[in-house]
Amino acid sequence: MPYDFETVIDRRQTNSIKWDVKANELPMWIADMDFKTAPAITAALEAKAAFGIYGYEDVPTAYFEAVADWWASEHHFRPELASMMFCTGVVPAISSIVRKMSAVGDNVLVQAPVYNIFYHSIENNGRHTLSSDLIYQDGQYTIDFDDLATKLADPLTTMMIVCNPHNPIGIVWSRDTLQRIGELCLQNHVLLVADEIHADLALNGNDYTPVASLSPDVAANTVSCVSPSKTFNVAALHAATLIIPDATVRARVSRGINNDELAEPNAFAVPGSIAAYRDGHEWVAALREKLAANQRLLQQFIKTELPAVHVIEAQATYLIWLDISAVADDASELADFIRQQTGLFLSAGDVYRGDGHQFLRMNIACPTSMLQDGLNRLATGINAYQAK
Amino acid sequence: MPYDFETVIDRRQTNSIKWDVKANELPMWIADMDFKTAPAITAALEAKAAFGIYGYEDVPTAYFEAVADWWASEHHFRPELASMMFCTGVVPAISSIVRKMSAVGDNVLVQAPVYNIFYHSIENNGRHTLSSDLIYQDGQYTIDFDDLATKLADPLTTMMIVCNPHNPIGIVWSRDTLQRIGELCLQNHVLLVADEIHADLALNGNDYTPVASLSPDVAANTVSCVSPSKTFNVAALHAATLIIPDATVRARVSRGINNDELAEPNAFAVPGSIAAYRDGHEWVAALREKLAANQRLLQQFIKTELPAVHVIEAQATYLIWLDISAVADDASELADFIRQQTGLFLSAGDVYRGDGHQFLRMNIACPTSMLQDGLNRLATGINAYQAK
Repeated sequence: MPYDFETVIDRRQTNSIKWDVKANELPMWIADMDFKTAPAITAALEAKAAFGIYGYEDVPTAYFEAVADWWASEHHFRPELASMMFCTGVVPAISSIVRKMSAVGDNVLVQAPVYNIFYHSIENNGRHTLSSDLIYQDGQYTIDFDDLATKLADPLTTMMIVCNPHNPIGIVWSRDTLQRIGELCLQNHVLLVADEIHADLALNGNDYTPVASLSPDVAANTVSCVSPSKTFNVAALHAATLIIPDATVRARVSRGINNDELAEPNAFAVPGSIAAYRDGHEWVAALREKLAANQRLLQQFIKTELPAVHVIEAQATYLIWLDISAVADDASELADFIRQQTGLFLSAGDVYRGDGHQFLRMNIACPTSMLQDGLNRLATGINAYQAK
Repeated sequence: MPYDFETVIDRRQTNSIKWDVKANELPMWIADMDFKTAPAITAALEAKAAFGIYGYEDVPTAYFEAVADWWASEHHFRPELASMMFCTGVVPAISSIVRKMSAVGDNVLVQAPVYNIFYHSIENNGRHTLSSDLIYQDGQYTIDFDDLATKLADPLTTMMIVCNPHNPIGIVWSRDTLQRIGELCLQNHVLLVADEIHADLALNGNDYTPVASLSPDVAANTVSCVSPSKTFNVAALHAATLIIPDATVRARVSRGINNDELAEPNAFAVPGSIAAYRDGHEWVAALREKLAANQRLLQQFIKTELPAVHVIEAQATYLIWLDISAVADDASELADFIRQQTGLFLSAGDVYRGDGHQFLRMNIACPTSMLQDGLNRLATGINAYQAK
């Protein structure tokens, strides 16, 4: 492997939210990797820093070409250049779209358990969350399409946010599933917003389907949010792209993003993104191998050391959804116990709602030695909890 | 002078909004300087770029200490650390504060002619602009306090935005003036929001008064927005600080800023700002000398070459407000003519409203050779316009 995913980097005292923890603690919660990003990105950022003038910037065509080329070669779909717009992030975009494209009091449909910040974007803006909870059976999640259809038909439901691939469960939705969701949205005049921030991290041959690549009538009713943020570990680059095939939807969303002051790139967002999308292919391929290997290590460890815990296989992402229902009733209490006993800091599943209170989310994007440390702490914590 | 303000830097093809112009054009419009920033900032950004991980960031206490220390030494007022919060920019902050702290249909009071983006922040969010126009007499601007008091007493008026120092006129408001405005706001339950982005660019011994340093009762009813953006030519650093002495006002504004996804710093905002505020004093002192010298050069040139144009002395900022009422009735038409004839791209004053249609705004923050080129083009354009 030509890239270094094994050196442990000290990120304490670097303003990192993840590493703002006590000396003995090991953070494996927030979705931020303990790897350096692709060397091409660092080189581009260094070059931009060296230029010395950091005035107001436009987003050049070269940026959109780099995004389109990446999608074409990585995901077999080339978005039209005119269909794209820049935004400072996926969450800022979703919040702005909720404000612009739905009304106060409307329902926004999600599929719990799902990325908790969706709830903030919906509820802090005076809308209601309506969840068509995913069904968990025999250790797997599926969609209850009857329930989904009923809830999309509610006249108060005007928007749906799909997480594709799905965080925190790691499902890569199939083209058929997404097409079916998209058709239901279209029939019910519900705008479909897709958070595709984990698009590039489908593992083990699983194939991500861009929502913008669905049938043209369905795609015209969608907004897809993509970013190098998760793929390249550049959350604080503050760069994302919206793919909005329909010109009217695009113009409206654009007014919202501009009005909310989320449309202007910082000095580093454009050169960093272009470097990522032009020169990051090999690095991401190597990263996917590393994440898949880490997941195998975790699966093997838990199978032998923690048989009471069930691992939901992550088809995508580096976030592992651990079913702890055989260990505890309350994931939050268990997470607190593990942190207190061992210093291992995981996300309790409660915040994702649905059946999240039976789960922990563990971020395994780190060097092997750190993962092994985390797994040992997990075993120590869970064994101590069970021994109580 | 130990810093270089004379080398002409080619900014074409760098995504610069300012320099997205034709080959023969010279842009002297948007408030962005053609100087490299302070070397300490560039060094800090290069160091951050070299680190290689750009994950989610917190704003450390060191950031607020750097802001407070700068204000203490440059402006004789040290804001409490607890009174400050980070935001991605002054305009984003103002837009968010309008949304959070006033209601749809309310009036927001401004003093035209004033920074045009205030109108966007107010009107695009469904509020009304109410202007207490500045009075222009004998070549100087003053405040009509009777008019201001009447308009602040309108029950629909819930917020005032003061531009301190005032863009585009360059007035440095006195402590007495600001105190009087603040008392009127307080009496009328009108929140006073101060755009202090040009605070550090008061020239020729003029002394900027921080609104947060007014009497405690008045200060408790204010939000001040400051940034290294204009001072250090780092608009695309996306860093600003809000100073909000009152805890309740601060908590409410903070919820708005967070909800609008404007509270998180990009990877470069914190180290760039700390470097600016810790190590930028000498550079800014030298910059102020250069800006004052450029203004003298412009005043001398216009006095001898363009006696029909009246220069409003800029007590602060590098934006010169040129009274062209003796030349043309319509600044916009004159600006278009000058651009077409000479390639010089100025801001027509119309967008600032009030009596702006009689003015052009000229950005003189550039090397002497570029300023001389701009002045020559201005004379050519105005002479040609008068010869029509």
